Amino acid sequence: MKPTPSKRGAIDPFFVMEVMKAAALREAAGGDVIHMEVGQPSTPAPRKAIEAATAAMQRDPLGYTLALGIPELRLAISRHYRSYYGLDVSPERIIVTTGSSTGFQLAFLSAFDAGDKVALGEPAYPAYRNILKALDLNPAMIVTEMETRFQPTPQQINAQAMDAKGVLVASPANPTGTMLGDAEMKALVDDCAAKGRWLIVDEIYHGITYNGRAQSVLALTDQAIVINSFSKYFSMTGWRLGWMVVPESLLRPIECLTQNFYISAPGISQVAGVAALESYDELEANVARYAKNREILLNELPQAGFDRLAPADGAFYIYADISRFTNDANEFCKRMLAETGIAATPGFDFDRGRGHYFMRYSFAGSTDRMIEAAKRLKAWVK
Amino acid sequence: MKPTPSKRGAIDPFFVMEVMKAAALREAAGGDVIHMEVGQPSTPAPRKAIEAATAAMQRDPLGYTLALGIPELRLAISRHYRSYYGLDVSPERIIVTTGSSTGFQLAFLSAFDAGDKVALGEPAYPAYRNILKALDLNPAMIVTEMETRFQPTPQQINAQAMDAKGVLVASPANPTGTMLGDAEMKALVDDCAAKGRWLIVDEIYHGITYNGRAQSVLALTDQAIVINSFSKYFSMTGWRLGWMVVPESLLRPIECLTQNFYISAPGISQVAGVAALESYDELEANVARYAKNREILLNELPQAGFDRLAPADGAFYIYADISRFTNDANEFCKRMLAETGIAATPGFDFDRGRGHYFMRYSFAGSTDRMIEAAKRLKAWVK
Repeated sequence: MKPTPSKRGAIDPFFVMEVMKAAALREAAGGDVIHMEVGQPSTPAPRKAIEAATAAMQRDPLGYTLALGIPELRLAISRHYRSYYGLDVSPERIIVTTGSSTGFQLAFLSAFDAGDKVALGEPAYPAYRNILKALDLNPAMIVTEMETRFQPTPQQINAQAMDAKGVLVASPANPTGTMLGDAEMKALVDDCAAKGRWLIVDEIYHGITYNGRAQSVLALTDQAIVINSFSKYFSMTGWRLGWMVVPESLLRPIECLTQNFYISAPGISQVAGVAALESYDELEANVARYAKNREILLNELPQAGFDRLAPADGAFYIYADISRFTNDANEFCKRMLAETGIAATPGFDFDRGRGHYFMRYSFAGSTDRMIEAAKRLKAWVK
Repeated sequence: MKPTPSKRGAIDPFFVMEVMKAAALREAAGGDVIHMEVGQPSTPAPRKAIEAATAAMQRDPLGYTLALGIPELRLAISRHYRSYYGLDVSPERIIVTTGSSTGFQLAFLSAFDAGDKVALGEPAYPAYRNILKALDLNPAMIVTEMETRFQPTPQQINAQAMDAKGVLVASPANPTGTMLGDAEMKALVDDCAAKGRWLIVDEIYHGITYNGRAQSVLALTDQAIVINSFSKYFSMTGWRLGWMVVPESLLRPIECLTQNFYISAPGISQVAGVAALESYDELEANVARYAKNREILLNELPQAGFDRLAPADGAFYIYADISRFTNDANEFCKRMLAETGIAATPGFDFDRGRGHYFMRYSFAGSTDRMIEAAKRLKAWVK
């Protein structure tokens, strides 16, 4: 008698990774691929980070670290809040994680019990919804519109999910790149405080913004759960390193959870992370490249007929309404890969309703590739 | 109104990490510590692994990998099953994980729904129980005895947890180092098959055995969920790299879960892992050191009065009954650290009942340190 898989584990794939598989197959067969499917910088980790990791491997056995992270890294992140944001954040409240992915799990497990409702906007990073479901939590998807920059408002949350125990927002957001304004963020902070709800803010695209710096929600409250990562601005996706800043009341639960669930984040990545936090010059050069890529695509894509684009305030994505071409983004995605070699992600990863006529294009790659992508798309659409 | 932490997140600490914190404080204050608290080899990753990682950092941006792992590593692990165990295991069934820690989470989430009961022996690695609880699963702890080498039997499981949806065993086990014999493992496999239960086998101490090699449960069945890791035999704890071998029916659920929960294991660690699988000579030299350390402690500890020791068939732990000294292992642990500089782990991490009169000593460190530890313990106990 064979046992059966669980129901909770029957979550949706993270479809972008299915596109990665298809792109990898094409490459393995000798095909050319322009990778716009995943938020993957074409740059490696900062030079100093690589040097630090190389030296550490020669010097140190790189064993388990303390569960909350090596003290040097927690201190360096605290200094980052001072120098980058002008904020005092104690290293005690900073928890090093294995990418933002485990930060979300720790936030959800420490804040919510099975059955609890968590409100978040749609479109959104699909892993939010899928992780919540697999942990027996109840994602309340708030359909958002261009008028609110695809961000949920307290009014929407209270109208559609008054019993929510928490609210999760991202600014800049994925897939749209849109940001919450200061007033909008403050309205969410105040409403969550009034309702006794947890507010989780995904700040992993901080540093990659095109109209001034993003301010951390920590400037407004010490009660929010902040998730951040070395993957995007610090260009270290595959190193699987991130951090959280959490309210006092969650410190000990999260310490116990992370001891048991992960033991520690990768040691070599933590050493590299300290050096990455001393690499602003190199990182700002990456951001200048993203800005250039963004400008190219915002100019060129409309000429290819992609003329309904979300305002990309930050991050490195163009979220394009493709309803004038198709109502089947998956089919569009497959044909585009087959006929142009461009891999991008169908919108239904991010929005189960309207996503069938959206595509997300990542411009985290090199500028040459973005120019080539725009050229191919214009030719293809004709 | 401040929101409150969850109930599910209120799990026990992994106490060994509390001892690590205390030891780190002592070292920060200039004190000397002999680390026997954690299963942390004193050796770094194999030389070839470090070379491969160093080269990869120069060559490759080291971005996200495919969710199931880089194909080279899945192939190399498949070859390991052939060369080390004489078994054919398709790379398709091999899933690369971020240490065994995430392997357990993927196993539990894909196999069990909230409320399901999972039987496991006690004493056991504490994270099993704590992860199960935080995922709203129900660990059924089967108190085991020396007579069955501290391993649970089908009779005990059926008597105490007939409604269990799964059974979790480790061989060699932590903290005892004891192994299941071939007949005992087969009895568990057959009983799980008869009852339609999932069987999860933790094989992370494979390679580190003192009376011949351990055989994988995969020699008996393709329906078990096998968890393994690069942390122990491969001496790569801090690299956070492991793998699972899973039955066909769990492949797709686990692929979707890992895409959403982790994106991928660390890229640099995966590259290093391929080279680690070509480093048997260096690794066997490590095992020879563990064997020497084990011999020293099994000879010396009884002279210090630690004369009731679990039979350490494998792994690198001595699990000692200290009831002749104390009934408060925590106090014993603190005094031992303060007065001898030896950090070790109180048994109640592993056994909530009898653990108050047990200590676990890891002998994964260098032989010199083990000799010194035995000397200090003998002097201290006097």
